[in-house]
Amino acid sequence: MNELRNVLAVDEVAELHAAALEFADVARDIIARAWRSGFSVERKRDGSFVTNVDLEVEDRLRALITRRYPEHGILGEEFPPARPGARFQWILDPIDGTEDFVHRVPTFGSILALYDNGAPVVGVLDHPALDLRCDAARGRGTRKNGERVTLADLPEQTANEQVRLVLSARGNFIRYRDEGPSFDALTRAFPNHRVYRSCYGHSLVASGAVDAMVDYHDTPWDLAASQITVEEAGGVYRVVRSFVVDGVPIYSAVFGKPTVVERLCGLLGAP
Amino acid sequence: MNELRNVLAVDEVAELHAAALEFADVARDIIARAWRSGFSVERKRDGSFVTNVDLEVEDRLRALITRRYPEHGILGEEFPPARPGARFQWILDPIDGTEDFVHRVPTFGSILALYDNGAPVVGVLDHPALDLRCDAARGRGTRKNGERVTLADLPEQTANEQVRLVLSARGNFIRYRDEGPSFDALTRAFPNHRVYRSCYGHSLVASGAVDAMVDYHDTPWDLAASQITVEEAGGVYRVVRSFVVDGVPIYSAVFGKPTVVERLCGLLGAP
Repeated sequence: MNELRNVLAVDEVAELHAAALEFADVARDIIARAWRSGFSVERKRDGSFVTNVDLEVEDRLRALITRRYPEHGILGEEFPPARPGARFQWILDPIDGTEDFVHRVPTFGSILALYDNGAPVVGVLDHPALDLRCDAARGRGTRKNGERVTLADLPEQTANEQVRLVLSARGNFIRYRDEGPSFDALTRAFPNHRVYRSCYGHSLVASGAVDAMVDYHDTPWDLAASQITVEEAGGVYRVVRSFVVDGVPIYSAVFGKPTVVERLCGLLGAP
Repeated sequence: MNELRNVLAVDEVAELHAAALEFADVARDIIARAWRSGFSVERKRDGSFVTNVDLEVEDRLRALITRRYPEHGILGEEFPPARPGARFQWILDPIDGTEDFVHRVPTFGSILALYDNGAPVVGVLDHPALDLRCDAARGRGTRKNGERVTLADLPEQTANEQVRLVLSARGNFIRYRDEGPSFDALTRAFPNHRVYRSCYGHSLVASGAVDAMVDYHDTPWDLAASQITVEEAGGVYRVVRSFVVDGVPIYSAVFGKPTVVERLCGLLGAP
């Protein structure tokens, strides 16, 4: 697997990175238009929201990806996987945080990533309503709105109270298993926290606006762009729990500045 | 006191409302310019951040208010009170959420309100980086970016899990007294929560984007615009705790859609 990964040349990465940014531009145009002019909302069977925009964006991106890279696989939130055995897999969530999108809270975002034999090559976190994009590609660094960002680690002696931490809501921690006590321990130990319901926290970490995030019980598309955007900025990404529900792997991850990630993993008893 | 309040005529309220919006425009211009072009940051003695922008905005608003209303009092975060015995009091926080402003998180906001004998007349919550403003004046309703908003109450049978709740961080709940167990109880009972470190939550409530907020251990300027913006939209605002620290009253408040506020006050054992 490592050998296959290594054959990906620098200019191939650059080409795939450029393609991902083009696809993200298309998603942003559709979402930004709908954000201004309106959209229709329905409830999925699990009670969560879906809009015509989620469906339109994923449908459009699938068509673009398939036309450009007919041999690549696609895994997305709204439709069944395409070519699941392929070496290259595009993973996407057209609108992560649809509930916020529906309620006019601008922190929702589009997630788009490309994996090569299970390892991330490109990641894009795009927030049309905030005019914010974080993107990264292997060996090419992380950018916030086109400018390189590097995470400066916190000094070892920084008190927990000063750490700027993002958490997913307690609802995430109990979504598939009751890991609520981990949420409680985190909020006690790191009182300067924020909670967002979508990938906005991932962008804040990748751009250094906060120090770290603990995100529990997520699907592969929720976290698709986070490892590469954080690692290419100099941060650390750790999966601390994983299990499978109805055939879908569910991950819990801790990512951000190394000193903080280490402390969080210690608190969570992560290996 | 009620008699004095009642003498405030409709056109007087309209004039004061217009003045507050003008003052908020001035604040927004200064902040938006600094957000684009940069600013200097220092730490206050309590460890919190202050920038030249906080100081410039408050200084400028104080000068404008004093010129227009020389007999009005002013209470703000960064400078000592002016004319504290006056019937009319302007209360302002030039940048609520300076920590977020400093780290380029756009949910910070300006708070400006006018009180007449202790009762709110006008309130403005302004978010320059989000191009979002919520404002209200007594008898004139609440507006989000100039459009009237009205809060539709949730159906009585709505499950707690479906309530969109904003909380202040656990750090707020333990800032002056240890009321952390209230945070723990709230996050357990209402798992679909968000946590913001600034007045953005107040705007989300006033505009109906979330259902309610529980905000603990706040100063008068943190909460200055929240009661009137929420009440004029048809919501309920309740102070559930208050005490005095170093001469400054500290309030904890619950506000939003009536059904949710009632449920939250029940959980918090509020009278």
